[in-house]
Amino acid sequence: MTPELTLYDLAGADASLRFSPHCWKTHMALAHKGLAANTVPWRFTEKEAIDFSGQKLVPVLVHGAHVVSDSWQIANYLEDTFPERPSLFGGASGRALSLFVNSWADTTLVPTLARLLLPSIHGLIHDKDREYFRATREKRFGKLEDLPAGYEDQIAALRAALLPLRQMLGKQPYLAGAEPAYADYAVFGMFMWARCTSALELLAEDDPVHAWRERLLDAHEGLARRAPTAQS
Amino acid sequence: MTPELTLYDLAGADASLRFSPHCWKTHMALAHKGLAANTVPWRFTEKEAIDFSGQKLVPVLVHGAHVVSDSWQIANYLEDTFPERPSLFGGASGRALSLFVNSWADTTLVPTLARLLLPSIHGLIHDKDREYFRATREKRFGKLEDLPAGYEDQIAALRAALLPLRQMLGKQPYLAGAEPAYADYAVFGMFMWARCTSALELLAEDDPVHAWRERLLDAHEGLARRAPTAQS
Repeated sequence: MTPELTLYDLAGADASLRFSPHCWKTHMALAHKGLAANTVPWRFTEKEAIDFSGQKLVPVLVHGAHVVSDSWQIANYLEDTFPERPSLFGGASGRALSLFVNSWADTTLVPTLARLLLPSIHGLIHDKDREYFRATREKRFGKLEDLPAGYEDQIAALRAALLPLRQMLGKQPYLAGAEPAYADYAVFGMFMWARCTSALELLAEDDPVHAWRERLLDAHEGLARRAPTAQS
Repeated sequence: MTPELTLYDLAGADASLRFSPHCWKTHMALAHKGLAANTVPWRFTEKEAIDFSGQKLVPVLVHGAHVVSDSWQIANYLEDTFPERPSLFGGASGRALSLFVNSWADTTLVPTLARLLLPSIHGLIHDKDREYFRATREKRFGKLEDLPAGYEDQIAALRAALLPLRQMLGKQPYLAGAEPAYADYAVFGMFMWARCTSALELLAEDDPVHAWRERLLDAHEGLARRAPTAQS
């Protein structure tokens, strides 16, 4: 028997609302491996609760004596610990190139999406998190109340940034090829961040990225589609 | 005996100047596979010379009865025709994800580099190509003579666009992992386009992308470093 898996997972005021893009990468990776984890709802300011991990951010995965933080490290841990289960990377080259896709999502999509989502997220998080959230986010992105004026531009910027994904989806259904794998989840996590926290429509209906997102919402028995959102 | 390989390769007025980013992807792919090709210098307006390929752009690879155009299709052809030689993709996932990297380079880096390189390229191409080159490029990028005023902004944009590559190079030496493969060549081809045609310094010396580019200049016995440039 493998020890239980426990995932510290960012939650809103409503503990069932799980919206971190990086935690969503891990949720999809666990589902891909056919693994179930107990999740612990965690709020931004509960730094002491994850002190044992030696850092201050989720996701944190606990597996017996192993504590792994950082979604990329967790994906690698799952791949190496459960090699007999469906591969997240499809070999060494796939792993190396998935890191590029992950870096692309984090550096290109996160800043644009943050400007679109932070105001609504501020309304969804626990009271005790609000001051911390505003202070840390406004340092980087400016006053939360000023962001909605830029939504139209940011949606256009997001759609432009997705061009490499859109272009490749003309040739294959997933980043990883015929079936989804971690590279897809690294990008899809961004869209779950948006879906869970905002009613903004980010993609045109005829965008191949929209169809790709639909396929991932249905993947692994609709895990992502079933997830609570702020609107549900 | 395998039939000879012939590559139609974009050339400048000086036939030894080979500067197409997409042809460079193919040069590196051939070297990776340990294959030598005869190259045929080709100018932009020599459309009839490649009519046999059913389209109007290089690279075109001829291998016995096989004619393959488009650098991505050529890479796939080489991988599938010479499977016993070093792999360009490292398996199905690596191939799928290399397509994303290729799309990223083509959609993100090409437009920025074009604005930096087109004026000098115009000075290096064959007389007979100049009118065609100016007309097709100005339709997309504006008057060639106006572009140099934007070089500083474009270099800043290029460096910003390279952030996902820069970030991942902190964790591994090549896009493809411990050794270079096609995903690296898909991006490196862009830098060869620049190296062969322009004296502009695009990367800061302490940029990890600079060090990666140096490693690729040295790869395959310095094939890329030895290539003639406009300055040499």
